Amino acid sequence: MQNSHDTMTRDPLASPNADLAQERAPEIVEALNAQEPPDAAKLLQSLPAEKAIEVLDLPGLDNTCEILAELPTDTAVSLLSGVSDDRAADIFKELIEPLRTTLLNRLNPDTRTTISALLAYPERSAGSIMTTEFVSVPSTWTIAEVLHHIRMVERTRETVYSIFVIDPVKKTLIQAVPLRRLISADPHANVLTAAPARKPLMIAPEADRMEAARLISRYDLLAVAVVDGPGHILGIVTVDDVIDAIVEESTEDAQKFGGMEAIDEPYLRIGFGEMIKKRAGWLCALFLSEMLTATAMQSYQTELEKAIVLTLFIPLIMSSGGNSGSQATSLLIRSLALHEVRLRDWWRVAMRELPTGIVLGSILGVIGIVRITLWQTLGLFDYGPHWQLVALTVGAALVGIVTFGSLSGSMLPFILKRIGFDPASASAPFVATLVDVTGLVIYFGVAALILRGTLL
Amino acid sequence: MQNSHDTMTRDPLASPNADLAQERAPEIVEALNAQEPPDAAKLLQSLPAEKAIEVLDLPGLDNTCEILAELPTDTAVSLLSGVSDDRAADIFKELIEPLRTTLLNRLNPDTRTTISALLAYPERSAGSIMTTEFVSVPSTWTIAEVLHHIRMVERTRETVYSIFVIDPVKKTLIQAVPLRRLISADPHANVLTAAPARKPLMIAPEADRMEAARLISRYDLLAVAVVDGPGHILGIVTVDDVIDAIVEESTEDAQKFGGMEAIDEPYLRIGFGEMIKKRAGWLCALFLSEMLTATAMQSYQTELEKAIVLTLFIPLIMSSGGNSGSQATSLLIRSLALHEVRLRDWWRVAMRELPTGIVLGSILGVIGIVRITLWQTLGLFDYGPHWQLVALTVGAALVGIVTFGSLSGSMLPFILKRIGFDPASASAPFVATLVDVTGLVIYFGVAALILRGTLL
Repeated sequence: MQNSHDTMTRDPLASPNADLAQERAPEIVEALNAQEPPDAAKLLQSLPAEKAIEVLDLPGLDNTCEILAELPTDTAVSLLSGVSDDRAADIFKELIEPLRTTLLNRLNPDTRTTISALLAYPERSAGSIMTTEFVSVPSTWTIAEVLHHIRMVERTRETVYSIFVIDPVKKTLIQAVPLRRLISADPHANVLTAAPARKPLMIAPEADRMEAARLISRYDLLAVAVVDGPGHILGIVTVDDVIDAIVEESTEDAQKFGGMEAIDEPYLRIGFGEMIKKRAGWLCALFLSEMLTATAMQSYQTELEKAIVLTLFIPLIMSSGGNSGSQATSLLIRSLALHEVRLRDWWRVAMRELPTGIVLGSILGVIGIVRITLWQTLGLFDYGPHWQLVALTVGAALVGIVTFGSLSGSMLPFILKRIGFDPASASAPFVATLVDVTGLVIYFGVAALILRGTLL
Repeated sequence: MQNSHDTMTRDPLASPNADLAQERAPEIVEALNAQEPPDAAKLLQSLPAEKAIEVLDLPGLDNTCEILAELPTDTAVSLLSGVSDDRAADIFKELIEPLRTTLLNRLNPDTRTTISALLAYPERSAGSIMTTEFVSVPSTWTIAEVLHHIRMVERTRETVYSIFVIDPVKKTLIQAVPLRRLISADPHANVLTAAPARKPLMIAPEADRMEAARLISRYDLLAVAVVDGPGHILGIVTVDDVIDAIVEESTEDAQKFGGMEAIDEPYLRIGFGEMIKKRAGWLCALFLSEMLTATAMQSYQTELEKAIVLTLFIPLIMSSGGNSGSQATSLLIRSLALHEVRLRDWWRVAMRELPTGIVLGSILGVIGIVRITLWQTLGLFDYGPHWQLVALTVGAALVGIVTFGSLSGSMLPFILKRIGFDPASASAPFVATLVDVTGLVIYFGVAALILRGTLL
């Protein structure tokens, strides 16, 4: 109470933690993230166990591993036993040895088995984001029995709004019944009477997590069942995990499109070395490819010496190719990601991009010709006696380069997908580099055609 | 039955629509989207009313307005009365006159008032994606009364999993109670006994819809209340609408980052003219700005004539600046969108990008110097007697340009946000253009310093 308000805000450790315990879990996560791991661990320990579990259950907590390492093993084990299975698996994924094995061995055998199973699913799979804490009931039960069961287990389940009905003999998934239907149905009737007419939607644990996201968003579900080959339900993917996955994937795609490796930490928290590593790789690869432009320029040295006027437009022309390519690539990466366009549509896309590129290139070409004509006739710059031919060269090259840019920019995501890469790797700089080299060849090729006998 | 399977798949109109009615709504939408509006309207009419409403309720149906125009007015009105309010408002937003007024006037007065109110909210606001079909109960009710009420209204509500408790006198929102808590609580107790300890989360109808998305994803909610100034609940935003909004915004951001206007239709369905319009604007703007490179080159004409060897590296050096800028921009756009970085953090970001740019530039600079040295000593190309100075010029220019690229690429989203634009407008081509012009100035500036007295 002696602390002024200012001091308290600056140093939450000095203030009684009763305040912090009153906050919502996401706010507590933010407070912990502002602390170094040892202090965050102390704060976490000072919270009531239930609240501490709620905090640890949120994916936004930074340095979870360092914090757990600071805690007494008993506390760490009891917190980890309390969080949901899918989150516990996420945490174990990042824990380092020997802490990982120590903690895993101290969990009760059931939890350990579940978590080990979850850890075995490949990253970004539906299995890796599923939870095993769902409600399942045998198909022989009445609605009243199901509702009674839900009341008993409600506290320990991630969601109770989708109830999964299982064949009592084969143990396979038969139906998914929404709770809203159960509560308005006759309690004495069999649970299946409240079920929808069609089979429930399911997904294999090895499927991509974005597949689960698409199912949930397409059918407005709150959860989708993850089912093995014979049809046993292994877990469920819930809508909140799907939102996190969608946001994460969009961020990674945006970073990749910017021409770097995806980073999985917030900008201000990633280390300097890590930042350089994520950016230098692509930057060097692009630089090495772009060196081909120097090679191309070298081979046109004679032309350059004869017609230095041509060099003036090199940056302008090259960038236009890169820009049109970047447009086409960003369009197609998203369309492929949203399944609006399939791999087999590549030809239809090419047949759209070809006329689009020609029209866009012609627009820029006309602007370019007008620019040169204006500067020449207004006396702003002298492009030499053959300035009309130079203008024509620039205009024609723009049509060719923008068309090539649109076409190759739109095809690159298809090619990458076809050979098994992520189409999102077709970054704007990647396309620009691809188009730059070809752009130079097109430019000098057009110049050779038009200016042969005059300038060249 | 005479139709072969092939014929049936090719022409669903020829086959009995009983098949179609058995499908899930999203599948029917897909089937309708493959038809011209008149045929789609016929198919829609052939479905049972309940199914047709379910189909119309999905945002993925194309040409909704054209389809409604084909239907008898009575049918159109009864379908529109059946769909959820928020979807009906979306449809009315796109309807053209006089059909819009005709249909609106034929709705029952209550629905008309609700839809008109929804239509009044600005696009992309929380109000524009909210639904008014939620469950609200007075705080005087017992849990049993609430559950009975839910059973009565379940069919007409978008969600019954969040129940909103209202002050019986002031009619303001007091609490949001999850259904899962209600069903496991004592039925005779007051509804508020099942409520969480804290006030419910709310949002203003004018708030950005992404604000609603952030609340829902941060607090793992199924719905968030939209509340007016005095605290009356106007509607709710549900998790499924939020997923649609997140996906839509990511797509728009990706397209903007690619350097074009966002398009709101799938790639293969957008008209050719529309496609040109969305792409030509930015392409021309970038082209006009990039013309400054020609102006810059013109002013260095004397240098160019003296040292034509310098032109060989122009594309290489300029593209490196654009690439590093593109990396920084994509990083910061996402960080700003996810609120990982705030406007006030600009200085911290600049102080990270400066050393990052210097290190990345030095890496590229060294590669560049090695390349020139190798080609020269291996006899692959002759960069002239002063090749060491040329190499040094290229290396030093790369450090300067990559640093400038990283710095300006990271600051551009801040500047755009500060002056009230969408930071996502800072596209890769935009940054590249910005850096290209400056890059030339830096390159020739460095060249003047290093080569003065030798080549220049």
